[in-house]
Amino acid sequence: MTTDSTQSVTGVSQLFQLLRDGVPRTRAELAKSTGLARSTVAVRVDELMRMGLITPVADGVSTGGRPPSQFAINPAAKVVVAADIGASHATVAITDLTGQVLDEHSEELDVALGPEPVLTWLIQSATALLTASGRTVGDVAAIGIGVPGPVEHSTGQPVNPPIMPGWDRFDIPGWIQQHLPMPVPVLVDNDVNIMALGERAVAWPGVDHIMFVKVSTGIGTGIISGGELQRGAQGIAGDIGHVQVARGANVPCQCGNRGCLEALASGPAIARALREQGIDAHTGSDVVDLVKRGNIDAIQAVRQAGRDIGEVLTTCVSLMNPSIIAIGGSMARVGEHLIAGVREVVYTRSTPLATEYLSIVQSIAADRAAVLGASMLAVEHALSPEALSSGFIAS
Amino acid sequence: MTTDSTQSVTGVSQLFQLLRDGVPRTRAELAKSTGLARSTVAVRVDELMRMGLITPVADGVSTGGRPPSQFAINPAAKVVVAADIGASHATVAITDLTGQVLDEHSEELDVALGPEPVLTWLIQSATALLTASGRTVGDVAAIGIGVPGPVEHSTGQPVNPPIMPGWDRFDIPGWIQQHLPMPVPVLVDNDVNIMALGERAVAWPGVDHIMFVKVSTGIGTGIISGGELQRGAQGIAGDIGHVQVARGANVPCQCGNRGCLEALASGPAIARALREQGIDAHTGSDVVDLVKRGNIDAIQAVRQAGRDIGEVLTTCVSLMNPSIIAIGGSMARVGEHLIAGVREVVYTRSTPLATEYLSIVQSIAADRAAVLGASMLAVEHALSPEALSSGFIAS
Repeated sequence: MTTDSTQSVTGVSQLFQLLRDGVPRTRAELAKSTGLARSTVAVRVDELMRMGLITPVADGVSTGGRPPSQFAINPAAKVVVAADIGASHATVAITDLTGQVLDEHSEELDVALGPEPVLTWLIQSATALLTASGRTVGDVAAIGIGVPGPVEHSTGQPVNPPIMPGWDRFDIPGWIQQHLPMPVPVLVDNDVNIMALGERAVAWPGVDHIMFVKVSTGIGTGIISGGELQRGAQGIAGDIGHVQVARGANVPCQCGNRGCLEALASGPAIARALREQGIDAHTGSDVVDLVKRGNIDAIQAVRQAGRDIGEVLTTCVSLMNPSIIAIGGSMARVGEHLIAGVREVVYTRSTPLATEYLSIVQSIAADRAAVLGASMLAVEHALSPEALSSGFIAS
Repeated sequence: MTTDSTQSVTGVSQLFQLLRDGVPRTRAELAKSTGLARSTVAVRVDELMRMGLITPVADGVSTGGRPPSQFAINPAAKVVVAADIGASHATVAITDLTGQVLDEHSEELDVALGPEPVLTWLIQSATALLTASGRTVGDVAAIGIGVPGPVEHSTGQPVNPPIMPGWDRFDIPGWIQQHLPMPVPVLVDNDVNIMALGERAVAWPGVDHIMFVKVSTGIGTGIISGGELQRGAQGIAGDIGHVQVARGANVPCQCGNRGCLEALASGPAIARALREQGIDAHTGSDVVDLVKRGNIDAIQAVRQAGRDIGEVLTTCVSLMNPSIIAIGGSMARVGEHLIAGVREVVYTRSTPLATEYLSIVQSIAADRAAVLGASMLAVEHALSPEALSSGFIAS
């Protein structure tokens, strides 16, 4: 009988997907859970140990020289590079295979400088972090990048990104790979999508239906449904900022339409409404400061923004039936006032069945959501059955 | 080296998933596409032929006694039972593994009779169809059932179905299995979800982002995103009938709220609006007749219902970024007037990016969507790698 390499790796992958949760297991437990023959499990476990992906775990009982009996994932086998490119700020981190941050670096950086300066900075920063951690590019299993605009996920190219001049259809993975000494998979997604991944990893592991709502200069959602990030046909699923809300009939939006959610409930929109009341507020950050100082007008404006967001989320709840809505982004720093407005409308307007098990909560990952999500994007790819089959991880 | 049954079946499944498209392939092509060794492919092809799932295909060239060189799926290897249980009407069909209907039977049947009479009818009708087709229960690979209410897909149990008294939490798969002479997998889903599956199978194979909108006595959507049906946390995703629309502030809905889409744009709601204008219309069917006779008031009312539906779908388009919206259900029989209203609002209000590649069309599967979708639900399960691995299909 010929040895069949695809099948061999399939067996490896089955075992590894099981061990990824970090729970140590014996060979007998692995055989039982996968249905693989015990002899096959023994061979596959040895292969995974040679790859460095799993490691023997002391089981507390003195074994007097017997071979190790339990195995678990070795999170340090490889690292991933996680990058969160914002409109005016960027973060690069190195994490292990469980998403634990080993080192990171943040900087003011204008995304409008264009792709080459920004990606050059990304590669230089990642290289410096790797060196400081005693690692090399050869240790990098994948690179995950979030950018502030729509992305065609299959190619990693931004598509008509409104605040990223020069990036339209730029081949981010291709450019990075050209500037690295060896091939590394590069995954790119929009910032709200990776925030949803980060939020799940930090706060809701195992939850399959989560909407992450980013309220900041813009408003958007990252949708996890059926356990998978939903990107839509052109990668713009979740883009609710230009849905019209009832209150906004006369409010012009920079998109050219009127009454868009973003024109009423984003940080700059709330600041503008307060200025019209004679209050000195120019940015979302000013609004957050006013709320934290107890300014009643600011609190009322934020609560109303929450209601406007809730109006749109009510339809989202009917459509997607999530179990968690997590509100994040810079405006979430105002605390409960924003969420109170969201809850007020969603719980009033939705059918009882749709909200019976729905929690609307503040983002727990908060400022860390994007970079942790970028790490998850990279880790998920690197440890997928397909990647293991391709043999990349073992290189 | 031990023979490993799980791996063996995995190889079988890989080949079969490839051959399911009906395109004949040679052993060499199968080896190339799967990465399996040629010797392995030869063994696996023999196994699939023994199961009856694939069949040699004449390749037009006289081979003078050589073994057959091309193989394709054998759709007649097994059958599935597909059932569409409506509020007052039910259909049972027998289809082959490509969804081709071999025989079917429809009847007026009140779902409010409760689960046991309805499911007894289903089993008797399916058995009669099998007998008439010269088949037995042993030939049935799976049973797919659509019901007019929310379903917890993992258990196949209706959950708080408003128009299905006596069905709440009834174990449909368990009851059917108790009343069959041998175990057959039973899959249950709500009617709009299976209509989305049926529409894809008939009109949009390979399209991954489709919303099917059923406009009838109620209004609901079945969402295919990322290639998968999205059911949500409690199986009620797509339930947009009780989203509020702007025009409806004073219109009470039977759900207890006001201004719900269903209270304005469903068949009975349009009929009621016409009655208030002094026109003799009591049901959605009356409305369809009036429109077909060219009644201007009815045409205008249907167009406005389309706008109301479009208002809700605009948010859905932003959220899910589908490439196809198919409008079906009994009210879709009014033709273009309803869809014209939907298009008018969606194309006016959505961002250009979201509608650039979006088609809003009449359902092509039409009255056949539900029963064909129930067939697809059963076939997808029966031919899944998991089902093949479990060895059921070979029984």
